[in-house]
Amino acid sequence: MAERIIVQNTDPQLLAQATAQHMYAQDKATQGLGMTMVDIQPGHARMQMTVRSDMLNGHGMCHGGFIFTLADSSFAFACNSYNVPTVAAGCSIEFLAPAFEGEVLTASATEQSKSGKTGIYDVVVTNADGKKIALMRGKSHQLKGEVIPTQSA
Amino acid sequence: MAERIIVQNTDPQLLAQATAQHMYAQDKATQGLGMTMVDIQPGHARMQMTVRSDMLNGHGMCHGGFIFTLADSSFAFACNSYNVPTVAAGCSIEFLAPAFEGEVLTASATEQSKSGKTGIYDVVVTNADGKKIALMRGKSHQLKGEVIPTQSA
Amino acid sequence: MAERIIVQNTDPQLLAQATAQHMYAQDKATQGLGMTMVDIQPGHARMQMTVRSDMLNGHGMCHGGFIFTLADSSFAFACNSYNVPTVAAGCSIEFLAPAFEGEVLTASATEQSKSGKTGIYDVVVTNADGKKIALMRGKSHQLKGEVIPTQSA
Amino acid sequence: MAERIIVQNTDPQLLAQATAQHMYAQDKATQGLGMTMVDIQPGHARMQMTVRSDMLNGHGMCHGGFIFTLADSSFAFACNSYNVPTVAAGCSIEFLAPAFEGEVLTASATEQSKSGKTGIYDVVVTNADGKKIALMRGKSHQLKGEVIPTQSA
Repeated sequence: MAERIIVQNTDPQLLAQATAQHMYAQDKATQGLGMTMVDIQPGHARMQMTVRSDMLNGHGMCHGGFIFTLADSSFAFACNSYNVPTVAAGCSIEFLAPAFEGEVLTASATEQSKSGKTGIYDVVVTNADGKKIALMRGKSHQLKGEVIPTQSA
Repeated sequence: MAERIIVQNTDPQLLAQATAQHMYAQDKATQGLGMTMVDIQPGHARMQMTVRSDMLNGHGMCHGGFIFTLADSSFAFACNSYNVPTVAAGCSIEFLAPAFEGEVLTASATEQSKSGKTGIYDVVVTNADGKKIALMRGKSHQLKGEVIPTQSA
Repeated sequence: MAERIIVQNTDPQLLAQATAQHMYAQDKATQGLGMTMVDIQPGHARMQMTVRSDMLNGHGMCHGGFIFTLADSSFAFACNSYNVPTVAAGCSIEFLAPAFEGEVLTASATEQSKSGKTGIYDVVVTNADGKKIALMRGKSHQLKGEVIPTQSA
Repeated sequence: MAERIIVQNTDPQLLAQATAQHMYAQDKATQGLGMTMVDIQPGHARMQMTVRSDMLNGHGMCHGGFIFTLADSSFAFACNSYNVPTVAAGCSIEFLAPAFEGEVLTASATEQSKSGKTGIYDVVVTNADGKKIALMRGKSHQLKGEVIPTQSA
C-alpha cells in the first residue's frame, strides 16, 4: 500500500515538491525510461533522460517519440504542480536536431499562461552542450480533485 | 552484417514493403514497444501496440508519450515508404480520450500532401472499439539518399 | 433592430442553416473580406474568398493571415452549426502553396471529433484548380447558451 | 518604380531596419490593417494593430483571423530581418483571451531557433493592459536571393 502523504496547503513550493514526489512514485512510464527530476517549482519542472540503445529508430537516432515523452513528462509534472489533477489536451513539437545514444537530454517546462482550467506550457529539450533538440508546447486541462490529499492548517 | 536487400524500383507497393521491412529490422524503439505493422502502402502505414503496464503514467492511464510514439512510428513508416530517408520536422497531437492497460491501439497514417521535400501526414489513433484516442499531424522532411539500395530494371 | 429568428429545434440541417445565416449577418469580418457560404451542414462548412490586392504581402502573395482567416471562418461556422456558441481555443496551419491575386480559394471544414465541450475540425483550403493551399486543424470550445433562440416543438 | 535601396551589408541592425522598411512599403495587407512597426531587430519584430469594427466576428469579438494576421506579420518581419526572403511554412496559435473593438494589440516575435533554412519564432500578442491574448509559434523556411539588394563594402 502506498503511504499517504498529508500536505498542509500553505506553501506552493512544498506542495509542488510533494505532488511531484507522489506522482513520480506512481508513474511507471517516467520511471521506466530512466527519467530523473532535476527541478520542480509551481508551474515549472526540469527532467533528464539518457538516450538508451532501445530508444533508437531505424535511422540510428533517438526516436522522436522518446524525445516527446521526456518533454511530455516534464510538462505533466509542471502542470500538476498545483496539486490539481491535470492532463494534456494537446501538444505540438518541433524537432530541431537529432539526439544519439548515450546523450543526456534535459527538458525544461515553463508555464506561459494559466486561465480557468486551461494552461499553456513551453518545453525546451537540450543536450549536454546546451544545443536545442526540440521545442514543445502543451495545452493542459485541469480535472476535479487533488493529486495528493491536503488539509488546511 | 545486415543482409543487403536489393530492390528493383519498379513497383511502388513492393518498394514500400521492402523499405518498411528493412526499417523495422533496424528500429529498436518500435520493436521494443511491441509495435506490429498491420498495413503498409506508398504514403500510408498502419501499426498496432498493446498498452503495457510500463506505459502507464501517474494517473493510471497510458502516458501520452507512448500514444505519440505509436503515431510517430506509423508516420515514419508512411513517409519513408518511397525509399527516401525522411525525418519528422514537427508534429501536433490532440489527445481525445485516455487509453488503459491491455488495450490494443491502432495508428493509421495517411499522406495529405507531398511537395518537394516536405510532406504532411495525418494519423488517427483508435482503440479496439474504434474510439478515437488521438489525432496527430506530422510534417516530414526528406534527406538525401535511399533507405535501401535499389537498382533499375 | 435585428429580426429575431425563432427556430424549432427539430431538424439539425435547418438549425445549422439558420445559425449560419444569423452568425453571418453579424460577422463584419467575414463579410468585409468578401467570404461567401457555399455549404453548411451540422459539423461542416464550406466558404469561398477571392484574393484581393489588399490581401497581398511583401512577397506579392496572399498574406498567410488571410488564408488563415478564411479557414478560421469556415471552422467557426462548422463548430457553431449546432447552435451552441463555440469559440476557437487554438489552431495549427500548414502553408503548402502560395495563392495569388484574383484566385478563388475554398475552405472546407469538417468535424473530426466532438466530445464534451471540445471539438476538433480539419480545414482544407484549395484554389480553383483543386490544389491544396493550406491545411488547418482547429480545436473548439463550447460556451453556454444558444447562438439563436430556439423553442421546442 | 520603387526606389532601390542599396544597403552595405555590414551592420545586422541597419540591415534589419532597411529590410523591414522595404517589405512594409510593399505589404498592402499589413498596411491595410493599420499595423505599425514598433521595433525591429535581427530575429525580432514588434508590431501593433488597433481592433477595428470591421475586424469583429459574430460574437462581437475580434475575429481570430486578425489576431493571427497581426502575429503572422510580426513573425514575417522577424524572420526576413536577415535580408533573406523567408516564408511561413506553418504556425500554431493558442487563443487565450478575447480582444474587443478599439483595443491596441501588440505582437512581439522572437527567434527561438535558426538552423539551415528553417527557423522557429514565438509570438506573444498582448493588449494594452499586458494581458496575453494569444501565443503563436511559427516555422519559417528561407528561399533564395535577397529581400533588398546589398553590396559588399
